[in-house]
Order: sequence, then C-alpha cells, then structure tokens
Amino acid sequence: MVMEGKTTDDPLSATFAALADPTRRAILARLAKGEASVTELAAPFDLSQPAISKHLRVLEKAGLIERGRQAQWRPRRLRAGPLKDAAAWVGQYRHHWEDSFERLDTFLRQIDDQDDRKEPDR
Amino acid sequence: MVMEGKTTDDPLSATFAALADPTRRAILARLAKGEASVTELAAPFDLSQPAISKHLRVLEKAGLIERGRQAQWRPRRLRAGPLKDAAAWVGQYRHHWEDSFERLDTFLRQIDDQDDRKEPDR
Repeated sequence: MVMEGKTTDDPLSATFAALADPTRRAILARLAKGEASVTELAAPFDLSQPAISKHLRVLEKAGLIERGRQAQWRPRRLRAGPLKDAAAWVGQYRHHWEDSFERLDTFLRQIDDQDDRKEPDR
Repeated sequence: MVMEGKTTDDPLSATFAALADPTRRAILARLAKGEASVTELAAPFDLSQPAISKHLRVLEKAGLIERGRQAQWRPRRLRAGPLKDAAAWVGQYRHHWEDSFERLDTFLRQIDDQDDRKEPDR
C-alpha cells in the first residue's frame, strides 16, 4: 500500500501515521521496557543511524517519545498520552467487533442445531 | 507532518495508515451507523468524487470497509476486525498511561501535603 505524501496536522492523525510502521512500533515496544539511547534503539535493526533518527523524529513529533535531560546521553523515553487518545478513538468501535463475533457465534450455533435435527432418531 | 511515501505491507501498518486521516476516520464514523453509498459518504465533505473514491480505496485495502452485494448500489459497510487488532496493539500500553496519571496524582498529593505542612499552627 502506498501512503499519500500529505500533511497531517491533527494530533490523532500524527499518532496513527507514526504507528503505521513496524520499526516505529518495535521502537515503542522497546521503550515500554525503559528508556534507551539512540544506539541501543538502533541495535536490533539492520538500519543506518540516519534511518533510525528519522523514525525517532516521527515518533517525537507525534509526542510518542521524549528526550531525557541528561546532556550527554539523551535517552529516549515513551510518552503514552497519544496512545491513550488512539485507544479511545479505536475503542468507540468495540461493540462493532464484538457484534461480529456474536453474529458468527449465532450462525455457528444455527448450523449446529440444523446438524442435530438432521441426525436420525434413535 | 509529512508522511513518508513508503510501502506498508503488514496489515497493522495498513490499518494505522488508513486511520491517519480525519476524512477517513469520519467515513468510518458514518459507516458505524450503517451502510452507505459513495454519494452518501461524499455528502458531508467538500471533496470531489475521485478524492472520496481514493479514501475509500485506502480503507478497502486495509480491510476496514467492504462493498455490499447489491449490483447497482454497492453500499459500503464497516469491517471492524482490523480495528480490533489496532485496539489490541495500542491496549498493550494501557498501564503506561495509567501509570502516568498515578504519578501525576501522587505528585499533586505531595504538593498538597507540603502546603498543609507550611500552614501555621493554630
């Protein structure tokens, strides 16, 4: 799927755009365990330092990470606020996916009942 | 924020990329109320039919909408499955945003306690 090269100014769009990449999601998963330097974050990926820095900039602009205050090391740290807003948006649709499962369940039970009825009397 | 013009093949990235646009999120919000034709979906937006069709293609490729079977009308319908997966991914970070609020709460209580202690004895 080719993403559009368009401007996304609203925070929720920036959050979802930042999450639309497996490397960036992996970086957040790493930071969920504790803060880490850019070198530590780059280690598991076969990516250049500039490529990692670009991903970190996207995450930082979306407010999903922040830099620590230690002048030398500047570890990155997870900021979960935007994830809460993303969860709230997606969560609005919860009853839709729950309904789908209920419909499937009802359907499977109906098939089951029909099978039972087809069985010969004993 | 300029999004990168890159290929996202994994389903979760396609879902988040599709959600990274306010018009597409508004289309999903409309479809959450029931199926709708392309004309009905285009109505609230000041967008051309091709622009709306492009958004619908992105949503369809991400599996977030599907087309009804009526040959003439082909109404679009919400598919909530990918939203469930997105919610599950974001939900992993729940204790991070809950922790942040707890820390803020603890901090505010500490300030409150300090203020109490500063008050002169009566």
